[in-house]
Amino acid sequence: MSGYHLIGVDLGGTKVATALLDTDLTVVARSVEATRVAEGVEGVARQVIAAVRGLTQGHPSPGLLGVGVAAAGLVEPESGRVVFSPNLGWRDAPLGDLLRAELGREVYVGNDVNMAALGELHCGAGQGARHMACVFVGTGIGAGLVLDGHLYAGAHGFAGEVGHTSIAWDGLPCPAGNPGCWEAYASGTAMARRAREALAAGAPSALRARWEADPLGVRVEDLARAVEAGDPLATRLIAETAEYLGAGLANLINLLDPERIVLGGGVIRGVPTLFELAEASARRRALPDATAAVTFRRAHFGREAGVIGAAVLVKLAGKT
Amino acid sequence: MSGYHLIGVDLGGTKVATALLDTDLTVVARSVEATRVAEGVEGVARQVIAAVRGLTQGHPSPGLLGVGVAAAGLVEPESGRVVFSPNLGWRDAPLGDLLRAELGREVYVGNDVNMAALGELHCGAGQGARHMACVFVGTGIGAGLVLDGHLYAGAHGFAGEVGHTSIAWDGLPCPAGNPGCWEAYASGTAMARRAREALAAGAPSALRARWEADPLGVRVEDLARAVEAGDPLATRLIAETAEYLGAGLANLINLLDPERIVLGGGVIRGVPTLFELAEASARRRALPDATAAVTFRRAHFGREAGVIGAAVLVKLAGKT
Repeated sequence: MSGYHLIGVDLGGTKVATALLDTDLTVVARSVEATRVAEGVEGVARQVIAAVRGLTQGHPSPGLLGVGVAAAGLVEPESGRVVFSPNLGWRDAPLGDLLRAELGREVYVGNDVNMAALGELHCGAGQGARHMACVFVGTGIGAGLVLDGHLYAGAHGFAGEVGHTSIAWDGLPCPAGNPGCWEAYASGTAMARRAREALAAGAPSALRARWEADPLGVRVEDLARAVEAGDPLATRLIAETAEYLGAGLANLINLLDPERIVLGGGVIRGVPTLFELAEASARRRALPDATAAVTFRRAHFGREAGVIGAAVLVKLAGKT
Repeated sequence: MSGYHLIGVDLGGTKVATALLDTDLTVVARSVEATRVAEGVEGVARQVIAAVRGLTQGHPSPGLLGVGVAAAGLVEPESGRVVFSPNLGWRDAPLGDLLRAELGREVYVGNDVNMAALGELHCGAGQGARHMACVFVGTGIGAGLVLDGHLYAGAHGFAGEVGHTSIAWDGLPCPAGNPGCWEAYASGTAMARRAREALAAGAPSALRARWEADPLGVRVEDLARAVEAGDPLATRLIAETAEYLGAGLANLINLLDPERIVLGGGVIRGVPTLFELAEASARRRALPDATAAVTFRRAHFGREAGVIGAAVLVKLAGKT
């Protein structure tokens, strides 16, 4: 397979990241641009096609094995149809068909979180695991489930919406319907909201100057720096977030009995202490027999998780 | 296979139910006795062996295809070892080996809730479903998960402990460790506890006479009768329980994207209105795309779910 290439596309509501990879999944070239959401699925498909052609033309290859797309939304895997994507503003968008028609190549579309989990399974922190939950904590929380050695997509490709499982049956409202959903408590968005609320209520903190300059400007990186400096508010917020994360992770352990939990996403990468604190919370809560047999690992891939996972999807499809 | 028989054993902390079944899973004969928990795993194994011999001697058969046991506890499926059973008071109990040594037949041991789900999958309310959660609500709450057409046991056979997933991260304590666990809110035990608390606090209710006669005597059947008679306390307790049930069911739907939910157990059987109320609550909470594609069904089997499921385990093993 030497000399052959794969394309991985990470298609989100803010950016389109495209990578040309060797069949050993080394990234050879990449491009990133802002998603032209306003142009709808046809416009975004044209954008992806142009990015793919830009990379393949710049890097002659005896053969492009296919294009994998990790899309932010609910995806029907067989057709590559994006059933629903709040980030892209799509419902029933025929992304796979549009790309196939123009590219004349095999095109595979998967949910971005599932693709990140697939990447971890095949060449990251999930290698060797048959039963695994990969949980990504960012602006929201999503999970890719690997059950009996395979990515588990559910009956309709919607599985893994763990951010919308409730850890507080009568808790914070969620636009998606489930009160007290995990991501309303444990996501980066939730942490930043609690920081703003505490600062507005007068909590003493080194974060105050930044908040006064821009009340929406307090970010995960600011919290991480403040924790390192011993700031009491930031320390409390991280400890709370770890508790919330532990509650949801314990639920996954008790329900699914995985052998491995992989934790990733911008919030886990951004706050170095959070991984260990969340693991400790989960282990305190989960059933002793199930938790004794679980290994926690940090995700191997960071921002490239989507393009790597999408390329793995192409590689696996080629093998079957 | 005409004339051949299977044995199904439902082994719980209070009773051992044993059935002799035709290969079409019709029960030919049955026995039930109190579990001799005080005699440990050796004594209980002797009890099961005697029950099996009693049924097979009474019903001559050209061949007994094997013995299936649905045991209340965490089971290592390959060995038939009961890793942990609070109900039976066992840890690492070699039940499968003890039965095999004496019976000289194939012996298969599974978790009782998983076996009930297996029975529903093969000859009950789960027929035809590839992705299903069977949730049984009784003194606790357990689930058997069918994922991609197979019973999902997890990495170590512990999967499905849904009763110990939390719907209230800082809620009611649970001896198993996870605060706010589902069964502390939505089980029959929880409902009876809330009834007692409300009566002790002076809530007007037709249940008061029974409670005054025996504060521990208020049972699910009493609640069901009181609901039918329009009792305000009982009606409120059932409505609350339906909300709690809906919260946990919505979590299962959002995480696993099943095509079917089967609801069973003594509490669902005992309170006729609870099934519809719990379904309505789950549908209000779960993600619209996932819930639109889910069918809710009542479990087909009642008290015989365990022996039927255990017999199905034998039948399936014989086919491979």
